[in-house]
Amino acid sequence: MQNVNVVPNWLMQRAYLTPQRIAIKMGEREITFDQLHNQVYQMAGRLHAMGIKRGANIAVLSHNSIEMIEILHALKYIGAVTVLLNTRLTTNELLWQIENAHVDFVLVESSMAKQLEGKSKARVVSFDALYTIEPKKGELHVVKEFSLDKPDTIMYTSGTTGNPKGVIQTYGNHYWSAIGSALNLGIEQEDCWLACVPFFHVSGLSILMRSVIYGMKVVVQDGFQAETVNKEIVNEKVTIISVVSTMLQQMIDHLDERGSGYPPSLRCVLLGGGPAPETLLEKSKLRNIPVFQTYGMTETASQVVTLSSEYSLSKLGSAGKPLFHSQVKIVQNDVEQDNDKPGEILVKGPTVSTGYWNCPDATKSSLKNGWLYTGDIGYLDADGFLYVLDRRKDLIISGGENIYPAEIESVLLSHPEVAEAGVTGKEDLKWGQVPVAFVVLKNPISKEELMAFCGEKLARYKLPKAIYSVTSLPRNATNKLQRHKLLSLLDGTATI
Amino acid sequence: MQNVNVVPNWLMQRAYLTPQRIAIKMGEREITFDQLHNQVYQMAGRLHAMGIKRGANIAVLSHNSIEMIEILHALKYIGAVTVLLNTRLTTNELLWQIENAHVDFVLVESSMAKQLEGKSKARVVSFDALYTIEPKKGELHVVKEFSLDKPDTIMYTSGTTGNPKGVIQTYGNHYWSAIGSALNLGIEQEDCWLACVPFFHVSGLSILMRSVIYGMKVVVQDGFQAETVNKEIVNEKVTIISVVSTMLQQMIDHLDERGSGYPPSLRCVLLGGGPAPETLLEKSKLRNIPVFQTYGMTETASQVVTLSSEYSLSKLGSAGKPLFHSQVKIVQNDVEQDNDKPGEILVKGPTVSTGYWNCPDATKSSLKNGWLYTGDIGYLDADGFLYVLDRRKDLIISGGENIYPAEIESVLLSHPEVAEAGVTGKEDLKWGQVPVAFVVLKNPISKEELMAFCGEKLARYKLPKAIYSVTSLPRNATNKLQRHKLLSLLDGTATI
Repeated sequence: MQNVNVVPNWLMQRAYLTPQRIAIKMGEREITFDQLHNQVYQMAGRLHAMGIKRGANIAVLSHNSIEMIEILHALKYIGAVTVLLNTRLTTNELLWQIENAHVDFVLVESSMAKQLEGKSKARVVSFDALYTIEPKKGELHVVKEFSLDKPDTIMYTSGTTGNPKGVIQTYGNHYWSAIGSALNLGIEQEDCWLACVPFFHVSGLSILMRSVIYGMKVVVQDGFQAETVNKEIVNEKVTIISVVSTMLQQMIDHLDERGSGYPPSLRCVLLGGGPAPETLLEKSKLRNIPVFQTYGMTETASQVVTLSSEYSLSKLGSAGKPLFHSQVKIVQNDVEQDNDKPGEILVKGPTVSTGYWNCPDATKSSLKNGWLYTGDIGYLDADGFLYVLDRRKDLIISGGENIYPAEIESVLLSHPEVAEAGVTGKEDLKWGQVPVAFVVLKNPISKEELMAFCGEKLARYKLPKAIYSVTSLPRNATNKLQRHKLLSLLDGTATI
Repeated sequence: MQNVNVVPNWLMQRAYLTPQRIAIKMGEREITFDQLHNQVYQMAGRLHAMGIKRGANIAVLSHNSIEMIEILHALKYIGAVTVLLNTRLTTNELLWQIENAHVDFVLVESSMAKQLEGKSKARVVSFDALYTIEPKKGELHVVKEFSLDKPDTIMYTSGTTGNPKGVIQTYGNHYWSAIGSALNLGIEQEDCWLACVPFFHVSGLSILMRSVIYGMKVVVQDGFQAETVNKEIVNEKVTIISVVSTMLQQMIDHLDERGSGYPPSLRCVLLGGGPAPETLLEKSKLRNIPVFQTYGMTETASQVVTLSSEYSLSKLGSAGKPLFHSQVKIVQNDVEQDNDKPGEILVKGPTVSTGYWNCPDATKSSLKNGWLYTGDIGYLDADGFLYVLDRRKDLIISGGENIYPAEIESVLLSHPEVAEAGVTGKEDLKWGQVPVAFVVLKNPISKEELMAFCGEKLARYKLPKAIYSVTSLPRNATNKLQRHKLLSLLDGTATI
């Protein structure tokens, strides 16, 4: 019996098959697959010389950059598992994840190294220091074949408990995700994907994976700037871009200011990170922007359900249909629901994570018989289109970042003067949603004090935009917090 | 741990995702994926009512037709393994394969049913009879998910021993083959593949698989006619076509007669079935025909190495580079060869067959550590392009059909007056190669008698185009027949 789950190292195979094609363009720099492979091979030699072992968990903390891309591939070359850290996290949050993941080394963009140096048990190495290391002499034993069932990356997501969990993504999860996207969007000769979403999120990382699997050029940007993005779409004849609603809104605003539009080469604007406002979809339609809404999560290695642009208005509010090898069903009380009946959204397929790092209980409760229990609520219409009604565990999606109320609540509750805390999302024109907090205080304290307290422990995008002092929180009969009723407290409530 | 080797039933998923797209066009008939699924579901009900069991081997003997396509998919719906029979074989050859594969039912195109009725232990059912069966009432338990490691089809190929062997092709072999082709040729929105090669060969069957996996229209033809093919390429805006050299030659001849050319929509002419003559490639270049030469075999579920059209002349004679998830190496005496050094061609990857049906010895000697020993001789140049020097086991390729000398020799040797027999390929303007035979006779017999004897046992394309009577055959020190020296006997030799 053959092992059908082994494929050649993706970048090495690309460097062999299509060496002269452009792999990466960032600013003025363009790198072919052959050049990228050579750089990565050197980097793998450095990582090896540093003592990184096959199978070790290695964290990477960086904004999008060519160095980061080289390091991400190099970690695959030496068979390490990459833990991707969100640059927006506080030092405390980072340290927690680094410790939880049993990380040996943290490879950090030099400007951010100070934040961690001397504070972590893991060895912290800045990119600058890394590039001065002499690569290992002699032939390097790089991983020439990837086993699709082996872990490749770990990304942390928060959940109901307040503590983030590391989602394990295998080589197969990433591979099948790229293939599923290709079977939906096609692979055209002139394809070029613009990455202005961060590589530490699966929306960004999946673009890098597609690049080496398809042999496709990726235009990389560090962070999002509507003007730069719009310029690159034209100059580089970008065909596909991944965005969240707030980005697309800014891109359209900028277009309108200039009175310009996109060239027909832009064939797909993949819109993720939560439901899109109707006005945004209508604006896009008016400007002939081909928006493909998509639903996915870290646990499904990016998009798993996508709505073709031809349906963006006729199936308004829908996330679309599954990718070719994925399945979706709606379950309520263990019973599969009929069309139009809401229930929990379950997802199955080869892009679904094998589980959470070191969390057998969470894995067991999320993954049953191959089905991922997303915690999200939705339904399928008669044509099989998915509609997402409520995001999992009261998830707040703010500018594409996932924020879990429980995580903010647990920080608030750790303050000695806070008796009870409830957090929910409030609509926001720019970000889609922002978190707001409701607290029951033991003794009066200032808003500044509480915000400063949170600021130590929470990334900025997670900080409540307002904190309201109330006498009690809405709870059900079993005393469970009813977050969906929090906003109704706002009438007659004073902020702290 | 997830089972990553399970994907939804391909056609059912297509009928769900893209119901209104055209799946098949043949003559005046066009069928959407939704319609095809409904037809196939009905057919699955008939097959079930007939008593076909999950896991049974069921043979299909048919020229390309919509009925055949429905039956091929329906067999997957009920979980049977399909044994594809070559319509060009004699009754004796067919009966041998039917018996060898332990087939329960043979489903036969009605015009060919007589040939087998009453002669086989398997139940022979004509398509006409099949379509009159009442489908099973009530809900049918169709296979909704395909396990990629399960056998899907069996195709017979001959070999050194003279007896054909059944190559097992799994669902995964076909799936990965489609994906590998997509990662090489792309999947464009307007893609439409013309199938004028038979579905009982992997070159044809793989087009049907791509159709349901990509959601792509296939224009089907029963047999090859240059004029019809050329007309359909224009009328249907065909983008890809699979051909062998002799077909392409006739297509170009026909074009030239009309003084016409192909529209730019034709983006790939996939040229398989043996090496292409230089003049044909040059003619194609002159007429802007984008020829992609390819190397593959039944054991690799079609193409495994392909040469992009941009290299068709600069890398003349090369079969190209492997598909993305496939690997090729050259081995001589168990040692991997350097560039430019010839040896046996080994292939590895998820499209490689899991083995030969009921032939553990042949499987063991062909498949070692995941590598398929093709028996073909070739080398890789400094850029990693594969050059095939000699086809396996003295293989003769005639008009795209594989012919093994040993099979013809064993038929000749079974005649009482033939003492020794040797068969080899001779160059032929139309077919590329044709088989010719050399015999040492015990007593003189007529050519007609010997040809009639062969005609009973061998498909027409395998019949020697000439039979030469000689006094001895070239043999080496260990008395092994040296087929490559046979043609040199022609000087001063009389045909029988």
